[in-house]
Parts: sequence; structure tokens; C-alpha cells
Amino acid sequence: MLYNIAIIGAGPAGCSAAVTAAARNLSTLIFDTGDFGLALRKSSLIKNYLGLPDVSGDTLMNTFVDHMKAGKPELVTHKVLNVMPMNGHYFLATPDGIYEAETVLLCLGVRHGSALAGEKEFLGKGVSYCATCDGSFYRGRMIGVITTLPSAWEEITFLAGLGSEVKVWASYERPAGGPDNIRWMNSKPLAVEGDGKVTALKTDRGSEAVDGLFILKETDPIEKLMPGLELDGQFIRVDRSMATNLAGVYAAGDCTGLPWQINKAAGEGQIAVLSAASYLANKKD
Amino acid sequence: MLYNIAIIGAGPAGCSAAVTAAARNLSTLIFDTGDFGLALRKSSLIKNYLGLPDVSGDTLMNTFVDHMKAGKPELVTHKVLNVMPMNGHYFLATPDGIYEAETVLLCLGVRHGSALAGEKEFLGKGVSYCATCDGSFYRGRMIGVITTLPSAWEEITFLAGLGSEVKVWASYERPAGGPDNIRWMNSKPLAVEGDGKVTALKTDRGSEAVDGLFILKETDPIEKLMPGLELDGQFIRVDRSMATNLAGVYAAGDCTGLPWQINKAAGEGQIAVLSAASYLANKKD
Repeated sequence: MLYNIAIIGAGPAGCSAAVTAAARNLSTLIFDTGDFGLALRKSSLIKNYLGLPDVSGDTLMNTFVDHMKAGKPELVTHKVLNVMPMNGHYFLATPDGIYEAETVLLCLGVRHGSALAGEKEFLGKGVSYCATCDGSFYRGRMIGVITTLPSAWEEITFLAGLGSEVKVWASYERPAGGPDNIRWMNSKPLAVEGDGKVTALKTDRGSEAVDGLFILKETDPIEKLMPGLELDGQFIRVDRSMATNLAGVYAAGDCTGLPWQINKAAGEGQIAVLSAASYLANKKD
Repeated sequence: MLYNIAIIGAGPAGCSAAVTAAARNLSTLIFDTGDFGLALRKSSLIKNYLGLPDVSGDTLMNTFVDHMKAGKPELVTHKVLNVMPMNGHYFLATPDGIYEAETVLLCLGVRHGSALAGEKEFLGKGVSYCATCDGSFYRGRMIGVITTLPSAWEEITFLAGLGSEVKVWASYERPAGGPDNIRWMNSKPLAVEGDGKVTALKTDRGSEAVDGLFILKETDPIEKLMPGLELDGQFIRVDRSMATNLAGVYAAGDCTGLPWQINKAAGEGQIAVLSAASYLANKKD
């Protein structure tokens, strides 16, 4: 099925976009790995989302997700690995398969923390952003995972199921249960090491041998997700209609730049969808 | 007192701006004639303000006003007649006196309906946007009022108190009580008539003699409020930081252009205040 719009990311911008897309009767895909606005959830108290004062980030984000789900978009809880233009519309590749949409709205948030030293250099040479895609290359070998995502636990147990030892550097505590060959590490990752391909992760407590390193964060580097998209520093360049340099591709929320604020993100999601709707209407003429 | 920011209009954009200004500890003036987001109040059902689904415009706007008031801005229920630059800050003239602020945020909404034929031509020659300012020129004479604002009832009774007959063309029903010399008209205004100064209002049921004509709407024509402000058609020209062409002057919400949506307005109010805060911080350096 060719959807009218594919929204990547279901934080405040993505949820707002989906709500307005439902109001406009657009057939809507929305992709989120399942953490839904993780950056917002970390805030203990939000005072300035107009109309919902003094609420925790977690409660506010749950309210947004409920509102988004009420519009019944097609919710896909897989990571979008790549967006490709294809004959006037877009292909979105996920570990679950390819989805197709006429327009794409990037609500990616921001990638907190800079890239690890060596991360870009070793991408595709041991560094990967997708366990489902590349895990089987490391069957029975030593695997490292660096993650900020609670939802990554599923991928970690998948990797452990490949018979490898899995060393995990996570920003959260180890969930209960899971196979014995998962080791939760206490050190701090500093750099990817190797010679043509990854051999180790350097940490503040010495080097740890790894053959493959999976970096699972809220959002992958944008240049990998969508080559050709124009950036402005670390942000996606947009105009006032939230259009990017690519026809039919829009962006909203933190990924378009400062200020990182909830009403700003929700407003941009709304504008972007209406711009996409107008683009779709013109296409039909 | 010189305030950090003066927000003109307390609809969704202005309320959001005031909430963020409070969070940033800016000393804040907010001006609204007391109808607070009249355009929104007319909507019976809002489905796409993220997080507060399926709510009437009136309820939503009341929620916004409560949130705005919780931040304790200085709320002035008088119309701003004119904004003037003055030695690096701004004077805001109201019928109640002059207020001063370092930055100005225009959250004016849009002026629904086009100007009446002859409105611009006779401005200052019988046509006025402020009863308190110009009412006394028409003491004991025939006065016309065209209004969409329930809060204008106070100005109408003030005009009637001047001993004039007051003919009112309103978009709402006559409130109970009030002096006998107020006549609620059923015809539809078409054009201002006169010869050098106003003599009559042409309607679809013939001409009605008036010596002065007060047009009391949500917002006055922008070129009168703030000469020198750059427009883009009927809208205020802004960049992505919501800055206008004038230093320290920002705009947010419907007055900056389409789409006329609540999250868009609230988001822009938030961005504008943060831009103003950054302008203020740079001024101090």
C-alpha cells in the first residue's frame, strides 16, 4: 500500500503530525522503536506546554501517544534504516520490510552526545545501527552494544541468542532475566578501535575486545538515514512551511533546530502535515 | 516600569508566550481587550490540539488563559493603539496610558473580513478604532459602532453616556440592560459614506446617518498599530526565530500566516519568547 504520509518518530512533533494527518484523512504510517519521546520522558516537570501545566514528561508523552493512537495511524515499531526516493514517492526500509509513502515527515529528535571517536570511520566495518540487520554477521563472536534505549533490550537478547557474548554499555540498569551471555558493563565508551575493521572498544577502564559494535540510540546520524538531505549544521534545513530541500520531504521538532520546546515541536508537526497535504493536492491536479 | 516583554494579544500564541516568559523569569506585560482568543472560542470542537483531544474552543481557550494567569504576568485589559520605538525600547499606547517594554511580541490573530469600503479613506475623519480615545469628539451627536467583540459592550455604553444616539452593528445579540439610546441594528454594513468626513454608513437596507463610526474588532489594521513593520501580504513577515524586521519585535500565531492552527500558534509564541530572551541577554553584554 502507498500511504499519503510516513512520519518517522513519535515524539511530540510526530504525534502532533499524526493527529493532524488523521483530521485531514491522510493515510498515515508512523514509525517509532517504541520508546515514544524518550527525551521528553526524562523531564520530571514540564511547566510550559500550554494547557497542561505542571505535568511530568512521562505523563505528558503518554497523553500525546494516546491522542496519536486515537487517530488510528498505521504504527510500525521498527527503526527506519533508510529513506529512498523512488519514482515520485519514497521507500522506507526497516528490518521488517519496505514501506511506501508519497511524502515523508522526519520527526527525528536529536542525537544526544557526539559521535564516538571512530564511529563514522568504522560504520559498515563492524559498527552498525541495526541488530536485526547485521547481527548474524557476528554469530558466535564477541558483540558490543552501546545504547540509551530501554526498547533495545529485545535486540540485545536477540544478539545473545546468536551464541555470542554480548557486552552492553547502557544508560539504564539491566532488566531482570535474559540469557547469561549478556554482560552489563560499568565503564564509559571512548573510542572504536580496529585496523580496517573493528577489534575493540576503548573505555575509561581499558579496551574491551569486540568484533561487532551496535550503537542503538534514539536516532541515527541523518546523513545515513537520508543521503542528499540538506543540513544546517547538525539540523535539517527547513523553510517556514517545514519543507526540506527534497520534494515531498518535511521535518519537524527538535531535528529542525532550537529551541527544543514541546509546543514548538507540536506546532511544526502540524504545519508540516498541512504542507504535505497541500503538496499531495497539487500532485493530483 | 520597563518590562522585559510586552505581548499584544492573549489568544493561544500570546498565552503560550506568557507561559514561557514566566518560566524564563521575564517581566511580562500582556494586553488583551478581555475576549481572549475569540476566534478559537467560536469553534465547537477542536480535535487536533495535541494532548487535549475533543474539546470545545471555549473550554480549550479557558484552559490556556488559566495557565497564562498562573504565571502572573501583568495583564492589561486595554487595547494597544500604537507601538512606538523609543531610545532602544518600545512605548505602547493604550487608552489607559503608556506602557514600556524592551521587546514586543505581536500575537494579533487575524482581522476577519476585509476592510469596509471607505474605512481607510475616512480613518481619523470620522472612523476610529478606539471609543475611549475619540468618543468625546462626538458628544451629543450620532455614533455608529461596528463590532465583533462582546467586550465592546462597555465602550458602547460609554459612548451612549456621551448623550449621543448609538447605532450598533454587532455580530452578537444585544446584552440585557444598558441605556435606551443604544439601537441594535439588523442591517449589514457595506460602506462608509461622506464628503471629507463621515456622514453615513451605507447598509443593505439603505444609508444610516452617523457622524462618527467606531470599528471595534479583534485586531486593528497592522499598519496603523506599528508603522514600519514589514508585511507579507496581510501577514507580518517573520523569520524562523519569529523576528520581524524591527529590532526586538517578534510576531507569533495567525498574524504570521497560514496555517491557522493552535499548536502552530502556541509553538511560535514559545519560539518568539526565547528569541526575545536571547535578544535581551545580548543587549546586556
